[in-house]
Amino acid sequence: MINKLSEKIKKTNAPIVVGLDPMLDYVPEHVKQAAFKEFGETLEGASEAIWQFNKAIVDAVYDLIPAVKPQIAMYEQFGVPGVVAFKKTVDYCHEKGLVVIGDIKRGDIGSTSGAYAVGHLGSVKVGNNTFKGFDEDFATINPYMGLDAVKPFIDVCKEEKKGLFVLVKTSNPSSGDFQDRLIDGRPLYEWVGEKVNEWGSTHMGDSYSYVGAVVGATYPEQGKILRKIMPKSFILVPGYGAQGGQGKDLVHFFNEDGLGAIVNSSRGIIAAYKQDKYSKFGAENYYEASRAAVLDMIADINGALEAAK
Amino acid sequence: MINKLSEKIKKTNAPIVVGLDPMLDYVPEHVKQAAFKEFGETLEGASEAIWQFNKAIVDAVYDLIPAVKPQIAMYEQFGVPGVVAFKKTVDYCHEKGLVVIGDIKRGDIGSTSGAYAVGHLGSVKVGNNTFKGFDEDFATINPYMGLDAVKPFIDVCKEEKKGLFVLVKTSNPSSGDFQDRLIDGRPLYEWVGEKVNEWGSTHMGDSYSYVGAVVGATYPEQGKILRKIMPKSFILVPGYGAQGGQGKDLVHFFNEDGLGAIVNSSRGIIAAYKQDKYSKFGAENYYEASRAAVLDMIADINGALEAAK
Repeated sequence: MINKLSEKIKKTNAPIVVGLDPMLDYVPEHVKQAAFKEFGETLEGASEAIWQFNKAIVDAVYDLIPAVKPQIAMYEQFGVPGVVAFKKTVDYCHEKGLVVIGDIKRGDIGSTSGAYAVGHLGSVKVGNNTFKGFDEDFATINPYMGLDAVKPFIDVCKEEKKGLFVLVKTSNPSSGDFQDRLIDGRPLYEWVGEKVNEWGSTHMGDSYSYVGAVVGATYPEQGKILRKIMPKSFILVPGYGAQGGQGKDLVHFFNEDGLGAIVNSSRGIIAAYKQDKYSKFGAENYYEASRAAVLDMIADINGALEAAK
Repeated sequence: MINKLSEKIKKTNAPIVVGLDPMLDYVPEHVKQAAFKEFGETLEGASEAIWQFNKAIVDAVYDLIPAVKPQIAMYEQFGVPGVVAFKKTVDYCHEKGLVVIGDIKRGDIGSTSGAYAVGHLGSVKVGNNTFKGFDEDFATINPYMGLDAVKPFIDVCKEEKKGLFVLVKTSNPSSGDFQDRLIDGRPLYEWVGEKVNEWGSTHMGDSYSYVGAVVGATYPEQGKILRKIMPKSFILVPGYGAQGGQGKDLVHFFNEDGLGAIVNSSRGIIAAYKQDKYSKFGAENYYEASRAAVLDMIADINGALEAAK
């Protein structure tokens, strides 16, 4: 799957991922009303609204991008019906040929991490049959519990040829509370980066490892250092756009082959129609605003990469 | 809810929680076959099997215990139908008057943590209605991303009078990979413990704060130190039984009021019938084996607390 991701990035010339993180107030009124008409103002109605919202955006942008990243929290907020919408979104993105990064940030002790890994990336045996629960292609995971928490995911990835992005330096303002604390003179995130590199070194695709990292666009200097610590890991970069990151901040997250990073934008794409810049599309054509925002993001990042050559 | 937890512990005289973490191979054959007969060897069949398994155990032990802790990973492994079984289990435990600790170990940046908090502990607005998605009473959360990740949970807890257990020192062997690393001469887990104490100090119930901590039974020395660092936090203690912790290791997790800790056992209770000690019950009466194991666990822990007085 890491090879597929690399190939799709080269083919689309777009090292980006669209974050499908729908808040109900991003969904235009007409989409909500259609869903509520069918299912009422219920969890089912809300979930139908975010699913229809996602679907139209995916239809409008799938030819431009290699991957999507649904954030499962946004679905879990609507309970079981929300999780159904998450699964529909994953399946639909697969139908459209997209790589699906499940932004789930799971992590637990051995057997429990194993259950998460099976549910999100692997197959579960029931009697004489096997099934795939959620069937994402990549998952984000949290390293706080150490190798125990990570290894079951690596094992499943090896079997299924899927991949991981381990949280290393996250994009949020208080990521420094623990991640920046110095251990033997180096911040925790560097130690985690070293481990990601080590874990990935025995799990390689053609050019990159199955074990990637999450490093926020809002920390470009740290990105530069972490790029060197983890030369064979893809970096998933959140924090572009709405959180403040720009194309020029991202140059050092990439390797010289133009690969090695994939930049996420969520709100900046899926709620683009709410920005002045794209308001001409109107709420009716919100998905066309998303397409325009994807094209602008690709141009911004590729422009920055060109300028840095 | 922290007051309710304290009261229920006093009433049952049982500072324990039963971990409802059903693996399919814990479920006796007759329970599986009944579920498969109705739903086939499918994800739905597996989910029905674990739900019926849970239900019989809850019926057998609910009068002895204050709380249960369903581990959501074990449900997510079966995809959407598994999550349905999780929700049924949460609701059923509430019907039985139990406090429900959702072992979800979530954590993300601000608005995303907010969505998790809303989904698991809070209420979501849909049009003119509000709904509770999963509606646990407590949730476990991961602090790696810092205060941003934790604050939205605290806010929802304040509003809903619910509570948290923040991962501090986990029970697994490689918890030391990052948690034990020294920062200014003290291990990371102590710094996280300090933060838990600080976060909790402004969110107090009658005697204990809404912000508790997870500290593994397998690390009694660290438990002793963390007990002092977080005097007003409840400690959720995993790792008893199957992971190796015993009653005598747990004494220092408690305060002098006999409160302040709640000890989890999962496999040791729900799969008790598989142990030689409880094999006389047979697979048919697996839930009676669970009841016997709960009684033994209460006696072990209370005995150790008495002996230490």
